[in-house]
Order: sequence, then structure tokens, then C-alpha cells
Amino acid sequence: MKNPKVVALGGGHGLYASLSALRTVTDRLTGVVTVADDGGSSGRLRRELGVIPPGDLRMALAALCGDDEWGRTWSEVIQHRFRSEGDLHEHAVGNLLIVALWELLGDTVAGLGWVGRLLGAQGRVLPMATVPLDIVADVLGADPAEPDRISQVRGQVACASTPGKVLGVSLVPPDPPASPEALQAIHEADWVVFGPGSWFTSVLPHLKVPELQRALVETPARRVVALNLAPQPGETDDFSQQAHLEVLAEHAPDLRIDVVLADAGVVEEPEALDKAVQELGGSLVLAEVAMKDGSPRHDPALLAQAFVQIFATGTGGSRNPGDW
Amino acid sequence: MKNPKVVALGGGHGLYASLSALRTVTDRLTGVVTVADDGGSSGRLRRELGVIPPGDLRMALAALCGDDEWGRTWSEVIQHRFRSEGDLHEHAVGNLLIVALWELLGDTVAGLGWVGRLLGAQGRVLPMATVPLDIVADVLGADPAEPDRISQVRGQVACASTPGKVLGVSLVPPDPPASPEALQAIHEADWVVFGPGSWFTSVLPHLKVPELQRALVETPARRVVALNLAPQPGETDDFSQQAHLEVLAEHAPDLRIDVVLADAGVVEEPEALDKAVQELGGSLVLAEVAMKDGSPRHDPALLAQAFVQIFATGTGGSRNPGDW
Repeated sequence: MKNPKVVALGGGHGLYASLSALRTVTDRLTGVVTVADDGGSSGRLRRELGVIPPGDLRMALAALCGDDEWGRTWSEVIQHRFRSEGDLHEHAVGNLLIVALWELLGDTVAGLGWVGRLLGAQGRVLPMATVPLDIVADVLGADPAEPDRISQVRGQVACASTPGKVLGVSLVPPDPPASPEALQAIHEADWVVFGPGSWFTSVLPHLKVPELQRALVETPARRVVALNLAPQPGETDDFSQQAHLEVLAEHAPDLRIDVVLADAGVVEEPEALDKAVQELGGSLVLAEVAMKDGSPRHDPALLAQAFVQIFATGTGGSRNPGDW
Repeated sequence: MKNPKVVALGGGHGLYASLSALRTVTDRLTGVVTVADDGGSSGRLRRELGVIPPGDLRMALAALCGDDEWGRTWSEVIQHRFRSEGDLHEHAVGNLLIVALWELLGDTVAGLGWVGRLLGAQGRVLPMATVPLDIVADVLGADPAEPDRISQVRGQVACASTPGKVLGVSLVPPDPPASPEALQAIHEADWVVFGPGSWFTSVLPHLKVPELQRALVETPARRVVALNLAPQPGETDDFSQQAHLEVLAEHAPDLRIDVVLADAGVVEEPEALDKAVQELGGSLVLAEVAMKDGSPRHDPALLAQAFVQIFATGTGGSRNPGDW
């Protein structure tokens, strides 16, 4: 399929990677972004001004900036962080700009649209919900003194850095209003892409917004999961790739997955992973998508190539090995 | 003269008023802006990040914004101030944006150029010097307990709010580097416009930058002084309009003035003012330039009309009453 309508869900650096790849594959691209961050510049803005945390939205917009001096310069500007010993330290300029537009226009999506136009963005960025959210994680052994006790940890920073094992996440409030534009984009999509990204704090939260989960289950779009290249310290320390899929299924039991994309070089148990994918009703696609420098980051060009093949064959390569 | 090259010098609301008028008269317009503010958002940025205070530059850029939805919206964004009980309170978004561009590009004029292009600005904005400055005022009776004593008051906020009578201002450092682009604009100008604005803290500081004063004295451009509509509490409480001209002459004895523009409705001593203007070698132009609501603000359309006539006759109306 040429120029498919694609919705990519996630947050932070993972979504930046998927959008950086997908922007070269389609010009009908929407990023749907978590709004549960409570750390850093975003967390401070959220507490000081009562807004949705803008940081992950800003980063997604930067990933879509126009491919010319204008787009790249404004992308650098919005990504720029002040460094000082004062009040502005660590604030990202784009976070401040987005919040100012929200205050001026009183409209989250319109504000993001203005930043998108400033950047000459090749695609659209939407929040997954219209109110700020808190992630609450069920954690085994959050207190190292009680390794067998399950307790709740609240807040994205706390969840992402707990010494315990995260079992699952939920949201506060538990039934936040989804962004209507995001729901519409999902219903109209040809493909929906989950991940890569911090599994419990950037990828799974979308499934815990009930309206969004319903849309993701009901959409006629095909669904791809792009797995991470390495477990994430804190969040998914000892998680195998199949464990990532298992928790995904636990968070949205009715969600059918069509394709799971994993890096051929990092899969340790290909048969176990293939089995886990099949249990979700999908096909496993193995491709070289990691940076060649050995860092656990996706190479945008290689990731784009993998998406092109997946979108072209409809279900990915492994069902039709002859295509690869 | 149609479409003259005009340089307007000042800062704050006064320069905003002159630029708002002049943008309709010419599309070859340059604002040259004081960089001595130490109050509010600008003062905090200057102290926290060691930059030139951006606020007056921001306001001048906003005055030049493109006359369409794009230009007006971004102008509102840069003028927007955060209100909170936290760190961002009172910071103007455009100040943060300008400073970010300076940090990224390492070039004051280039950074202002990017904001100008963002706004679709009809004209250019330059700083009067390339380093942050402090205004130092000689003040009579700064301490009300010693009304006859002359002392020095340092800082724009302190100078603008002293209970004493300001006699004159100087700068620290006393010989700052002028902006080369500002010097060139002055040398190439057809007209240079001083004021309106806070006399001691926005208009006269330009004359205390030695390179800038030299350029203003030597330029073949004609020079207009646009007088204020009312004395300014604190700074020029008991100053007559002719007193404004006298202190101007004291701060730049070699500066020839061609035209002085005053509002016909507020001139209290027309003959004394005319005499003071003639002593500077210039002509007095009286015109209705105040807002009709009685507030001491210039009406941009009326002020523009007065500039059109002044630029058309070359020396203003009062030498050639038949022209008016």
C-alpha cells in the first residue's frame, strides 16, 4: 500500500524514532502521544500551570519538522533547553511555546497545529487524552525490603525508576476523555503502530484510556508492534521480547495484532517470540533496524525500510517468506 | 519622499507606537532598541542567562508583525505572559524564544532575524549595543530627606521610579560596542526618528553609546523628534516639552534636529517650544496625534499621517505653513 494512513502511538524517544522513520514512508501520518509525564520540564509546567505535560508532544512535533533550513532551525529551537542555576534550568523552549499557545487559544489540538505549521511538520501530533494523567503501576518488590509484596507506585518518573518489577499500569483518572481527533485518526487509519518506547510508561498507557482502547480494537486498520531493542533499566529490566507482548495482551485482551517487528540481531529466542506473536494472531517480522554503532537505538532509515515492506505485504514477511 | 529609509530609536511602549505608525509609511524600516532594561522578565533573563535584555526587542518585533492571521497570532504568542505562582510568572514567551535563538545561533542579530521572519515582520529590529547595559542617572533629591543633593541611581527600574529629579543619564559600560548593523542603518537612512518614549531610559540612552551618537551626528539623514504626550511619572514629572529638548541637546550637543513633532492638543507653551526647537536648528510641527479617548497614547494612524507629511515636505510643516 502506497502512502497509507498511519497512526503511531507512544511517547518520548521511542515515538520520536517511529515518527522519524514513518515520515519518510507516508505523508498521512499522525502521532498520538501519552500525556502522563510528571518529570522534568513537563512535570514542572504541569504543576505550575495545570496543563497537559507538553514534552512528549514537543518531541513528536520535532520528529516531523520540515526537511529544510526553516523546519530544522525551528525544530532545534523547540528542542533547545535552557541551562542555568536559575528558574529556567532544563525547561525546553518548545514546551513553553506549546503551553503559551494553549493558554492563548484555549484549544489543545489547535495549539499543536500552530507549532506543526511553524515547523512545516510532515504529519500531525495529537495528545492521547485531553487532561493530564497519572500512571499508576502495580509493582512487585517496590520496596527492596519486601521483595514479594505488590504495591502501587504513582507517577511516570516513579514507575520508570522503581527498583521493583512492574506488573501492569493503570491511569488516574481511570476514564479520561480521549482526544476526539485521535479517535477519528485511529478509525480512519490503514495502519496503527505501537512502540518502540518505554513499554509501561509510553506504549501501554494508550490502551488504558478506555475510549482509545475501544477505537484501537474496533478500527479496521492493521496493527504493528515495533519491539524495543533492549530492556529498559528500571521499567523492563528482565523482560524478554515475548514478555513485552504478554503484558500488551494483558492490558488489552481484545486487541488483535497483525505484525510484530523485531530486530533480527537482538532476538534471543526467535521460536519463543514467534510463538508469542502467533498467540496474538500476528506474524513476526525480523529485520535489521538497529543503529550500526551498537547503541540500542533504531536507525530511522532501516526502520522505515521495514515499515515499507510491512505496509507493502499487508501482514509482514514471515507469513510469506518468499517476499523477503 | 515615498518609501524613505527610516530608523526609529527608542524602547518599550514608545517605540512600539512609533513603529506601529511608521510600518504603514515605509517598508524600509529599522527599529534600534535600548538594551538596558533590568526589570521584569527581561531583568530576570539577563541575570539568569547573561543575555541582552530581550523585552524591548520583542515588543518592537511585535509592532512589526505581518498583517495577517499568521503574523498576528505569532505576535500574540510572543507577547503572551505566563501568570502563575511559580517560576515562570510574568515571563513573556517571546523573551524566552529570542534568548533560545541567541543561545542556539550565537548571534544576536541573526536570532532577531529569525523571530522577524516568524512574524512576517515588516521591517527589522536591532539592538543599540551588543552587550547588556546599565543606565546610571544623576538624580537631584533621590533621597527625599536630602532634596538638594545630586546622587547617582543605577538601573533602568531605579532610574524610572526615583522620587528625585533626573538630570541626565550615562551608561555602564560607558563605551559599549554598538550594533554594526544599527550603525549602517543610521548611515544609510533618509530619516531618523527619536521618541516617543521614556525619555531618560528609552530615548536618550542611544545618544550615550559613543559610536551610535557619532553615527547619529554624522548621518546625512534628517532627524525627527516625536515628543511625548504627557510627562512620565517618576522620570519626567515636571518636565515641559522644551525641557525634553534641552536634555536631549545636553546629551548630544552636536546633534542637529530637523523636525520636532508635538501633539497640537497637549502643547502648553507653543511659543516657548517653538523657540526651543529653533535653537536646535529645527522646525516645530504640531499635529493631532493623540488617541481620541483622552489617554496619553499616540494613535498609530494619526501619527503615521504626521510622519507622511513630515517626510513629504522634508522639513515639516511649520517652515512652510502653506503646505499644511
